[in-house]
Amino acid sequence: MEIGTTPEYANGETLPVGEIPEDANEHCPGPEAETAGKADACEGCPNQQICATAPKGPDPDLIAIEERMATVKHKILVLSGKGGVGKSTFAAQLSFALAEQDKQVGLLDIDICGPSIPKMLGLEGQEIHQSNLGWSPVYVEDNLGVMSIGFMLPDPDEAVIWRGPRKNGLIKQFLKDVYWGELDYLVVDAPPGTSDEHISIAQYLKATNVDGALIVTTPQEVSIIDVRKEINFCKKVGIPVLGVVENMSGIQQPISSFIFKKIAEDGKEEDVTEETLKSLQMHSPHLLSLFASTEIFHVSGGGAEKMAHEMHVPFLGKVPIDLELSKAAEEGRSCFTDPKCKSSASALQRIIEKLLKNIEP
Amino acid sequence: MEIGTTPEYANGETLPVGEIPEDANEHCPGPEAETAGKADACEGCPNQQICATAPKGPDPDLIAIEERMATVKHKILVLSGKGGVGKSTFAAQLSFALAEQDKQVGLLDIDICGPSIPKMLGLEGQEIHQSNLGWSPVYVEDNLGVMSIGFMLPDPDEAVIWRGPRKNGLIKQFLKDVYWGELDYLVVDAPPGTSDEHISIAQYLKATNVDGALIVTTPQEVSIIDVRKEINFCKKVGIPVLGVVENMSGIQQPISSFIFKKIAEDGKEEDVTEETLKSLQMHSPHLLSLFASTEIFHVSGGGAEKMAHEMHVPFLGKVPIDLELSKAAEEGRSCFTDPKCKSSASALQRIIEKLLKNIEP
Repeated sequence: MEIGTTPEYANGETLPVGEIPEDANEHCPGPEAETAGKADACEGCPNQQICATAPKGPDPDLIAIEERMATVKHKILVLSGKGGVGKSTFAAQLSFALAEQDKQVGLLDIDICGPSIPKMLGLEGQEIHQSNLGWSPVYVEDNLGVMSIGFMLPDPDEAVIWRGPRKNGLIKQFLKDVYWGELDYLVVDAPPGTSDEHISIAQYLKATNVDGALIVTTPQEVSIIDVRKEINFCKKVGIPVLGVVENMSGIQQPISSFIFKKIAEDGKEEDVTEETLKSLQMHSPHLLSLFASTEIFHVSGGGAEKMAHEMHVPFLGKVPIDLELSKAAEEGRSCFTDPKCKSSASALQRIIEKLLKNIEP
Repeated sequence: MEIGTTPEYANGETLPVGEIPEDANEHCPGPEAETAGKADACEGCPNQQICATAPKGPDPDLIAIEERMATVKHKILVLSGKGGVGKSTFAAQLSFALAEQDKQVGLLDIDICGPSIPKMLGLEGQEIHQSNLGWSPVYVEDNLGVMSIGFMLPDPDEAVIWRGPRKNGLIKQFLKDVYWGELDYLVVDAPPGTSDEHISIAQYLKATNVDGALIVTTPQEVSIIDVRKEINFCKKVGIPVLGVVENMSGIQQPISSFIFKKIAEDGKEEDVTEETLKSLQMHSPHLLSLFASTEIFHVSGGGAEKMAHEMHVPFLGKVPIDLELSKAAEEGRSCFTDPKCKSSASALQRIIEKLLKNIEP
């Protein structure tokens, strides 16, 4: 028993994402055509009725979005197959990096049910305001504005228990009603997956020249499986893949920062950090300046680099787990101005340089 | 500018999740009442029209689900706020553990866009079949059956680009049409968040006595924020929280399993593992049997235990990152029968024992 995976018609709307549905008849005139559902070729097509009854012509909201986006030079989507891979951390640090290069940057969070962006930009508790020009983003700096449902929740612990159409409605409003002004870059942080938010953002931005998507993953095979799906999603909806980033590529930190334990046969643990460090100090002091590194996930399939090669998309680099980066992210700070983050900041910097090279000037 | 967070009316269906909507008029007769939308109290209510036009009486599908679930003793949902926290790994290992206790177990994967369960149970490439009794799960053992959209995809790399209503439809079919037979436990693995899949499963199982939800998180504050939302979701839809599990609570592994590196001022790295291990062997051989442990995320807020205490839900325990567990999960094996997983298996075992105590016999 198999199911089809054709992109669905947008719920409550009438434009399909991408082009002609996979299950369409031969010589399909296209679902947006005046003759859609009425042409001879439509006879017996499973989409005939929806095509025939859908109102024709462009959605006026899409025109409003196109106008709003006319002042935005570049649009970058940050996607992931699985959650928890560091996508929002990457989107936040990418925005910081671009702003530090004196670009005008907007960061739009379309993760409606789990918005992390306000925290990651140090903007918790802020509110958005409305002006004649539209909804005003919350600004970190003059050249870094942020929009998220997180700014609209009366209580940050409250769950946003919304189904797709309501999420899609808010995403549309974000694109249509937020006044960003002139932007060099709009970075869009999406939730994981390939469902409502993704179909909507692809559809709503279709006419506005999206530069492409950056896809974040961890090296585990379960995460890589979902990235393959995400890349296929991008291909189906016509969004170029700017590159893949492998995050949480193991951990690497100074030997002296570990806790050392003796574990008995019965599982009982004893903290022996103090005597271990003393012993090292006495017998092998040079070891204390070394770094210890290890994978944290079992990597069976060659990780993201091999997958990117197989799927013919650019691989941009790896970022190891770094407690200092994690700390900067949780505290809403840029890692690029924190000397403690030196190692991961330079890994991120190299990735961002490659990314920008894949975007047309 | 604030938005409401009232649970939405089910799209394409007419029963609200939970009880009376927050924005309802005083003396609301309830959206399922015969007089819904027509009573005097409904005058001017924002929900009046949807209540008035919705067909009354129970949804026949819900009755079919209730009948189907009559042979299932216990139903446990496995939820998380954020993705990538190890939810599917936990659901898979919980199912293995219950099956090894000779229980009849079903594992239902309702993560429609990112199904990991087939891989985690070692069932990739399997297909489901239809019989007179309904859809047949795929069996790992006689007493462990599994159902997932992953078994229905013609190509595992293909993205399932579906909006909410179609996902909800499949979840309903899973509940209505799968023939599980007599089950002691049905474990349901949900995607992260509080949207369509969650509202649907809560709604569809409402009449069938769900034992409750187990919520998996990592110790990071961004993950904990989303767990608070998830707990509030459970409260709103009336699902008891059986407990919270903190996963990826740091890493702990033998010193001898690390790679050691010398990192120069300019960031250049040199692998010095061999000489480091030799040096330890010579000068401090007792250190080689120790374990080194460290947090892998910055933990600012006291982690899941403190949060569980504050939210008045049970805390079930912590599971550290364990490469061997990760390997068992990726290879679709039980960690409980693998001596290499001893340490995480016993942590999981303690958590599962506590969990089962929170379920009525």
